Amino acid sequence: MTKLDESTIIKIFQTELGNKEFVSEDVEIFNLGKIRIVAKTDTLVESTDIPSKMRLEDAARKSIAACVSDFAAKGIKPEYGIISVNLPKNISRSKIIDVAKGFKKASTEYGITILGGDTNAGKEIVFNISIFGNSNKIVTRKGSKNGDLIFVTGPFGYTTVGLDLLLGKIKEKGKFAEKAIKSVTNPKPKISFGLKNKKYFSSSMDSSDGLSTTLNEMSKQSKKKFIINNIPVRKDLEKYAKSHKLNLIALVFHGGEEYEFVFTVPQKYKKIIKKSANLLKTPIIEIGQVTSGKGVFVKEEKNYINLRDLGWKHFG
Amino acid sequence: MTKLDESTIIKIFQTELGNKEFVSEDVEIFNLGKIRIVAKTDTLVESTDIPSKMRLEDAARKSIAACVSDFAAKGIKPEYGIISVNLPKNISRSKIIDVAKGFKKASTEYGITILGGDTNAGKEIVFNISIFGNSNKIVTRKGSKNGDLIFVTGPFGYTTVGLDLLLGKIKEKGKFAEKAIKSVTNPKPKISFGLKNKKYFSSSMDSSDGLSTTLNEMSKQSKKKFIINNIPVRKDLEKYAKSHKLNLIALVFHGGEEYEFVFTVPQKYKKIIKKSANLLKTPIIEIGQVTSGKGVFVKEEKNYINLRDLGWKHFG
Repeated sequence: MTKLDESTIIKIFQTELGNKEFVSEDVEIFNLGKIRIVAKTDTLVESTDIPSKMRLEDAARKSIAACVSDFAAKGIKPEYGIISVNLPKNISRSKIIDVAKGFKKASTEYGITILGGDTNAGKEIVFNISIFGNSNKIVTRKGSKNGDLIFVTGPFGYTTVGLDLLLGKIKEKGKFAEKAIKSVTNPKPKISFGLKNKKYFSSSMDSSDGLSTTLNEMSKQSKKKFIINNIPVRKDLEKYAKSHKLNLIALVFHGGEEYEFVFTVPQKYKKIIKKSANLLKTPIIEIGQVTSGKGVFVKEEKNYINLRDLGWKHFG
Repeated sequence: MTKLDESTIIKIFQTELGNKEFVSEDVEIFNLGKIRIVAKTDTLVESTDIPSKMRLEDAARKSIAACVSDFAAKGIKPEYGIISVNLPKNISRSKIIDVAKGFKKASTEYGITILGGDTNAGKEIVFNISIFGNSNKIVTRKGSKNGDLIFVTGPFGYTTVGLDLLLGKIKEKGKFAEKAIKSVTNPKPKISFGLKNKKYFSSSMDSSDGLSTTLNEMSKQSKKKFIINNIPVRKDLEKYAKSHKLNLIALVFHGGEEYEFVFTVPQKYKKIIKKSANLLKTPIIEIGQVTSGKGVFVKEEKNYINLRDLGWKHFG
């Protein structure tokens, strides 16, 4: 039997439900009374998303952080959360406490009131999180204009190395290894930066499915060409990739799970944005520019190569 | 290792999150702007909730119906839904279409706009549903007064037989078997009746965890004694129980998954309620009365026996 990829599965749901919106924007938006509500649901599945060496507390925190990341990209304050938990029948009390501690940590960190949820018995651990906020202005994936600058909220590429370390595929110690692991276990979506600056964004999108996926989606939605002339990478990762003969482009653009976001801004806002990033200690990186045309192109030495969408697919 | 039961697990979450509200009412209520939002999240897990002989289309429909059941009890109109689906990697296209068809069926049946959701790979099928509505008046679990009449929205007891049939534990054919199976595969929460009549309810609660659980919870919350002198059962089930030497009390009160609800009303509204039930073809049954005291008591022949909470526990 051929495996179905995620986009095929989503298409089946869209067709059957007669709903083209099924999984197309990062967040769900709906009106109740006179209020526009923003919601985001995300799911963390043990066998797919939680390496066995990852602490359950970190996994629980991350399941909320993953939702917050989409709110950060859209500039929405998360206010409430509902948590559904599936737990194997023989799970220990201490593991459940770890899970609860992780939820508590995230809810404090992001100021989210946990309303409640449900608990279920299942074959594996599953955290399903929904968060809610309220806003009339939401930055969309489309909207970038010629000349706009493209930014990301932090460096990319650590998560692939971190995941391989957590899965025991590679062995490595020291500061770099710790940093790589932390990028997986303790992602920090830049919510304050998103809330403060969304008014300057012409478009934005969470990058957790992989930077190449996000850039291609934003380029397609805006019907623009995205030129990337500065790869958002730190020296330590560059060095590691070189010494281990890893493809830097793949690490940075196709890894995913960074929980940063990509945004575009008109050039006139560059100074304001940079000043705000400094104040909020958000290490934004300018990576390129929007122009006429289509596709995403990355400068490698003197050539521009077409960057295809090779990010994370859940059913790949 | 001792298995933890659901209430222990919930207590751990309540303690760690510093949130006594974690899983205590049937629905979540929160304010955004000036709007009071009602939300309900429910999860259907393959290994726990979906007998292998149950069609996936029915299971998907039921996952939404289960949420609607709580809205029915609270008299809230469901308006929007978000769906999270976990699917095993090797699932076939036709099964995914079945799932989508089931969601579509329920969304049409209850007038719910499906906003979207997410799809994930996992070890087993999991449907996580959140539905949303908006209301300033919500009927609570407490609030019943001395003399109030206790009603249920339909007959109980078929689901245990239906589940045993679906699990192949018993073999039976004919009309009764079909009806019992349908009670599991195609529950019909009485949403129209709930919406129309909530203004007359002094308290109400969904009964899907088992009628004994619901009655005990409502009695406890109201600090009243619930006297049950009419067991909500049809002749066909009574006959079946007798001929198969099954305990009728256990079938009716401890089975669960009926997706009916229990409500109490002041006696003066009895006529109005009955007329409305007739018009809406909702087969409500008057089962007893609220009095001073505590506990739930069921009349068996000439004696009243204490009905303990022996409904469904997820981690039992």
